[in-house]
Amino acid sequence: MKNAIVAQSGGPTVVINSALAGVLTRAKESGKIGTVYGAVNGVQGLLERHIINLSEILNDEEKLRTLKNTPSMFLGSCRYKLSESSLASDYKKVIEILEEYDIGYFFYIGGNDSMDTVKKLSHYVKEIGSDIKVMGIPKTIDNDLPVTDHAPGYGSAARYIATSVLEMAHDTYIYDTESILIVEIMGRDAGWLTASSALARNSYSAAPHLIYLPETSFDDNRFLADIRKALTKRKHLVIAVSEGIRYEDGKYVSANSDVRDQFGHPVLSGVGKYLETLVKHGIGCKVRSVEINVLQRCAAHLASATDIEESFTLGVKAVSAALDGENGKMAIIKRTAGTSYKTEYDLADIDGIANLAKPVPVEFIGKEHNDVTDEFIAYALPLIQGDPQVRYENSLPVYLSVAHLDN
Amino acid sequence: MKNAIVAQSGGPTVVINSALAGVLTRAKESGKIGTVYGAVNGVQGLLERHIINLSEILNDEEKLRTLKNTPSMFLGSCRYKLSESSLASDYKKVIEILEEYDIGYFFYIGGNDSMDTVKKLSHYVKEIGSDIKVMGIPKTIDNDLPVTDHAPGYGSAARYIATSVLEMAHDTYIYDTESILIVEIMGRDAGWLTASSALARNSYSAAPHLIYLPETSFDDNRFLADIRKALTKRKHLVIAVSEGIRYEDGKYVSANSDVRDQFGHPVLSGVGKYLETLVKHGIGCKVRSVEINVLQRCAAHLASATDIEESFTLGVKAVSAALDGENGKMAIIKRTAGTSYKTEYDLADIDGIANLAKPVPVEFIGKEHNDVTDEFIAYALPLIQGDPQVRYENSLPVYLSVAHLDN
Repeated sequence: MKNAIVAQSGGPTVVINSALAGVLTRAKESGKIGTVYGAVNGVQGLLERHIINLSEILNDEEKLRTLKNTPSMFLGSCRYKLSESSLASDYKKVIEILEEYDIGYFFYIGGNDSMDTVKKLSHYVKEIGSDIKVMGIPKTIDNDLPVTDHAPGYGSAARYIATSVLEMAHDTYIYDTESILIVEIMGRDAGWLTASSALARNSYSAAPHLIYLPETSFDDNRFLADIRKALTKRKHLVIAVSEGIRYEDGKYVSANSDVRDQFGHPVLSGVGKYLETLVKHGIGCKVRSVEINVLQRCAAHLASATDIEESFTLGVKAVSAALDGENGKMAIIKRTAGTSYKTEYDLADIDGIANLAKPVPVEFIGKEHNDVTDEFIAYALPLIQGDPQVRYENSLPVYLSVAHLDN
Repeated sequence: MKNAIVAQSGGPTVVINSALAGVLTRAKESGKIGTVYGAVNGVQGLLERHIINLSEILNDEEKLRTLKNTPSMFLGSCRYKLSESSLASDYKKVIEILEEYDIGYFFYIGGNDSMDTVKKLSHYVKEIGSDIKVMGIPKTIDNDLPVTDHAPGYGSAARYIATSVLEMAHDTYIYDTESILIVEIMGRDAGWLTASSALARNSYSAAPHLIYLPETSFDDNRFLADIRKALTKRKHLVIAVSEGIRYEDGKYVSANSDVRDQFGHPVLSGVGKYLETLVKHGIGCKVRSVEINVLQRCAAHLASATDIEESFTLGVKAVSAALDGENGKMAIIKRTAGTSYKTEYDLADIDGIANLAKPVPVEFIGKEHNDVTDEFIAYALPLIQGDPQVRYENSLPVYLSVAHLDN
């Protein structure tokens, strides 16, 4: 009976540990896998033999349940790109270490870049005639992984963003004077997260009143014109902008905000700050910009239960597929046709996923390029549903510590 | 039977509407107050006769329950200072309007500045021999109101900050390289909010590892020395700093970060950004700064139930006291001696509160001036306890709309 190893890579999400819990649960239940090891800090940690015994460390139901609801990455992360040439020593070393631990199954949980590792390793094992199965499990708050209907981590981030925008709208509405709140949201190349701010709208609040995604080109004057038009209808505006919005010539709007720090070095202060000063001088009313920070990828107390369960099931699916002899695939979510939200789990070839990105499609973007459509709302709303099962102690969430760290 | 009027003023908190619910509940229950009116946008709205009938608008249990859990200010706010001279026309006009609505009781919910309005009006009614009772109900996330053990709004903000710092610590711990997260927290003159970040610590995470309050003077070199020392013990540091930290000469650290915007105007980018570049050049490791934004005063989904109930009870207390003939007082919380957390409600003369601030006392600040003491933890922990009764629809919180706005 072969062993398995699992690792996590890229930026954190709220549900990447749930996928790990899925892998551990299915591996144990299958009776066909010996020990499940974890490589700490991704493939980089693997190359440094930073390997721990997860079957021992996470050996009870309670720990797995906590893991499932813990944000960020239990196994830590890395940003490490395997060499393009399979002749490089990295590959030989990985296989050497995997054989040393008698590994038959390698699971990598990550986004676009991490799937590059899955692609390269899965090709390499075929090339050398190894029996090791290499499988990818998706995650990215950015939701820009192709083929899968959506990526785990997105639904929870979307719920956090929508809730925060609604609560900040309440904060914006209080004064009897014109005021504008600009909310800067993550997503350098895809506007999925910024679009999710539209879920904040309800019967009494239309915030965000304007939404700008990187999928359409931005124009300073059109932006000011949009604001002036909106201010004829209401005093308070909440505007959601992606950090990655660009001008027609491809230049990032945030590149405008180059300022010098106290050492005379240029600082990129962000698109929100740039637009704040643009509005201050172009409109003249009270304006504030807020950057929704790393909490959009780690606020597990506001996770979507749907997202957590889907991520878990993708971990389960990847193990089942590897046991069936699959290699070089990523587990994916398919949305089945019909009015109610239903999903199926499938596999997709890693070559059609790695290093590719999925932008927000035109049918989800409003005609004026300052809003999203009802079709987008229908797509995104099911993904944020349900409360996580976070345990609280002294009214603070109880998560699982990150493995092997000096916190 | 006289009517009452209530208004809200200053910056928002998560529980200022709970105090309003307390006023409405007690007023109705007493049977001694006719209609409860609301002045929209504080005393400024009152002067503009922007008055609504709250007894009609908030006439059922369900609405009051939602109000109690709704962040920000149902009645809107203002930043309006009544003239120092009671001969000014403002005073005459206020009384004229109050008499027009047959008001016997005036309740003002707010912080230090708002209590200035209570002070001036309560003195004025005495001066002119009016029977109107003017009462203050406290709120401020800053917790810097004197006399009261703590201020409503603080506990909820503290819970949000502690939860966010814990979740961001998980985000910081993932890479195998030295990294520092600087978290900038509100509180220009008092460090109560920044101190509350210490509640994030648990059995596996000591974040925040360093804490800097405005009550002690800051020094760039000592700050870098603190970091170097801490990095000998661990790779990942989370540092909490108050936006209001100052050097020994009284100059704000944030004043260092003066940079020019795209129009050549100076921009105050905040103390976090300044310290981020200081660390980048002085230490050289990966560093990120995050400003915990307006959500610390409006994230009602993470409110403290203790805070909500206390705010409600202060509203009740103020009405009871006004009915007993009190004038020029603010309702306060007293902590009773003993090991378990218990409180009593009392009244304090407004003259000893208005325009005064309560800093974090020395016994709550660590000797090295980079941490808080266990005494502070014992003081603050009871204030963040309990979950709010927020209702969710489509997994998003359902709050009450702000009155009379075009949202």
